[in-house]
Amino acid sequence: MRVMGVDPGLTRCGLGAVEGRPGAPLRMVAVGVVRTPAEDDIGARLVAIEAEIERWLDEIKPDAVAVERVFAQHNVRTVMGTAQASAVAITCAARRGLPVALHTPSEVKAAITGNGNADKKQVGTMVTRVLRLDAMPKPADAADALALAICHVWRGGAQNRLAQALAGRGRPGAAVALQPGYRHPGAGR
Amino acid sequence: MRVMGVDPGLTRCGLGAVEGRPGAPLRMVAVGVVRTPAEDDIGARLVAIEAEIERWLDEIKPDAVAVERVFAQHNVRTVMGTAQASAVAITCAARRGLPVALHTPSEVKAAITGNGNADKKQVGTMVTRVLRLDAMPKPADAADALALAICHVWRGGAQNRLAQALAGRGRPGAAVALQPGYRHPGAGR
Repeated sequence: MRVMGVDPGLTRCGLGAVEGRPGAPLRMVAVGVVRTPAEDDIGARLVAIEAEIERWLDEIKPDAVAVERVFAQHNVRTVMGTAQASAVAITCAARRGLPVALHTPSEVKAAITGNGNADKKQVGTMVTRVLRLDAMPKPADAADALALAICHVWRGGAQNRLAQALAGRGRPGAAVALQPGYRHPGAGR
Repeated sequence: MRVMGVDPGLTRCGLGAVEGRPGAPLRMVAVGVVRTPAEDDIGARLVAIEAEIERWLDEIKPDAVAVERVFAQHNVRTVMGTAQASAVAITCAARRGLPVALHTPSEVKAAITGNGNADKKQVGTMVTRVLRLDAMPKPADAADALALAICHVWRGGAQNRLAQALAGRGRPGAAVALQPGYRHPGAGR
């Protein structure tokens, strides 16, 4: 399963892709960040972000896209730009029929570090360790995008195993078939 | 000058187009609303809104697009969806190289009714009168989209006259040429 994570933002939009399955080592496919100048108008910025996300989707060909869920409560000044950049990422993925998953920052932190209140450095350290990288991806937005993708593989995996367990229960006497590579059609939704 | 107004929203996204110039009667070109079901996932909703806006841009061929500027302060529950729908509208327009203008709700109300705190009914009444319509456009989102487009024509006109006045000042002795139909390249930015 190949997942592209997007940490949305107008000034810096983190992008990261990983490949693997729950319970096995994950591999980093790509990591990067799209920057758009604050002095550009909002239309030019969103179009630039869209173009780069489209390029990534063409090249990376992910099975699913994980985007950070934005809350209006946090960082009122920047939240509108974050919501707008997230809309671009979600629309690009959905237009291609790719499953889009939204994960909250605390879901990602909890999945990666075991602590929903972990700071950026802890998340970056764990991303570096999980993907066996030589150095922590920078800026933090890039590491956060990888964290989103990792979180999605791990959470999607849990959903798969649960779905398989339930499917197994539905057929009396059937063993729960653990097919680690199997991707449930609803996974990532 | 033909302007398409967008009152962004996920549940109801108002669309309206008008044609004319400041100081002359305006004509309504089209009015409508895109609705997306709350039970659909965010990706499907944004893609549906994008498809309808693209269809409008193809058919209406506006010179500029006016979108309501969204503030994080208002209606915290729905503001994220509003910001996301606005991002789709802005991106569709900017991708085509169309000027995108953002007007705040109070700018629109002040331009249409003379009162920045006017209620929806007052705005609808004035839109009906200005465009010489038989009935008030419904729902309110559709009337608000027309109000945005009217506001943009009227404000754009003011910007043009100012730009022309400044241009006139730059050439000593030159008269300020009032060309009401002239569209300044920077208008609507």
